[in-house]
Amino acid sequence: MLVYGKNVLKDVEPKKIRRVYLNDNFRDKEIISYLEKHHIRYFYRPKHQLDKMVDKNHQGVVIDMDSFEYASFDSIMGESFIVALDHIEDVHNFGAIIRTCEAAGVKSILIPKDRSVRVNDIVMKTSVGAIDRVKIILVNNLCEALRKLQKENYFVYAAFMDGEDYQTIDYADKKVLVIGNEGKGVSNVVENVSDVKVSIPMRGKVNSLNASVAAGVLIFNMK
Amino acid sequence: MLVYGKNVLKDVEPKKIRRVYLNDNFRDKEIISYLEKHHIRYFYRPKHQLDKMVDKNHQGVVIDMDSFEYASFDSIMGESFIVALDHIEDVHNFGAIIRTCEAAGVKSILIPKDRSVRVNDIVMKTSVGAIDRVKIILVNNLCEALRKLQKENYFVYAAFMDGEDYQTIDYADKKVLVIGNEGKGVSNVVENVSDVKVSIPMRGKVNSLNASVAAGVLIFNMK
Repeated sequence: MLVYGKNVLKDVEPKKIRRVYLNDNFRDKEIISYLEKHHIRYFYRPKHQLDKMVDKNHQGVVIDMDSFEYASFDSIMGESFIVALDHIEDVHNFGAIIRTCEAAGVKSILIPKDRSVRVNDIVMKTSVGAIDRVKIILVNNLCEALRKLQKENYFVYAAFMDGEDYQTIDYADKKVLVIGNEGKGVSNVVENVSDVKVSIPMRGKVNSLNASVAAGVLIFNMK
Repeated sequence: MLVYGKNVLKDVEPKKIRRVYLNDNFRDKEIISYLEKHHIRYFYRPKHQLDKMVDKNHQGVVIDMDSFEYASFDSIMGESFIVALDHIEDVHNFGAIIRTCEAAGVKSILIPKDRSVRVNDIVMKTSVGAIDRVKIILVNNLCEALRKLQKENYFVYAAFMDGEDYQTIDYADKKVLVIGNEGKGVSNVVENVSDVKVSIPMRGKVNSLNASVAAGVLIFNMK
């Protein structure tokens, strides 16, 4: 969703901003330091390009932001089962996982702010409406979020190739399941934070499942 | 894959032919009755279009065929767990299901010849190489194939919204799992042939999972 103007920039929650386009001759130092302070990516573009994006008085500032309402981290406290996605990139996987969570009664999904898929039209469509019934929480730092949950007595289970057999684990009452990136799996930093590595035994030569399929198998077994 | 020529047409196994293009003035009755006898779809096209498809002496006959080697129905006899796809349409779902089957040790997948996805480049890519280790069997009639398996003492379980809870079923030693079409689910004709309807209980408002996720949850539980 594109919005525009200097005041609007400061009104929008920084973490909902994907990127900002500034007029090539834009020199307002206050705005630029605001963008840098909040780690918002910005790009210079010729005026005629900004005019094409929004047919209004944009003051040299066009903001590409999420229109979806993400939930707050605090709103998930007390829930028994949370799913965290460690840099999932594919919109269809994300949509399918949202759909799976809703169907399994999992009400919250954590995603990191950077290098991760976000909620967009394809995700909404792939989730077949489940998006309205699952909270998506955008966190600045996934490890930090997991540590906070551990302090609240959550157990963090991370999907790995070489972990414990998912069917033999006695799962905690309060749990988080981390599903890794499609290609790279769960990152090292998240691995270090996790309490238990959990695996779906592979009986063939393929060494992993599609991310949304793995999420489905684990979620329905852990719930 | 495009091949061409009158003799080639008769050499290719009819069920591997997707469609045939004939020159607008093609009048060889023997060829046309061959096409009709084998229920092969054919279309008339101007010569310059055929020339564009294949830069060779095509004799007015261009054949669009599967290059993938499907396995024979008889080759799956004796296997303990077979997956059947009742008109799956999405190539990514098909690829993910092949990958899941290979990972779970399921070695054979039945698909119907008509109105179903077939093995193509995207399917191969999505299956991440699993395609070479799973037999795909193209059947003219899925119900007939299931009935033949039942005669060999296979139990046919079909994924449904209103079936028995998949976790409470005591599965037979020789079993077939049928996964339905993404939108319509398992067809009525296949429902009538099935021995048991199996369901993943939905705890939210969404009434089904993505087809490849549902397949994954069921396959890993039944194996």
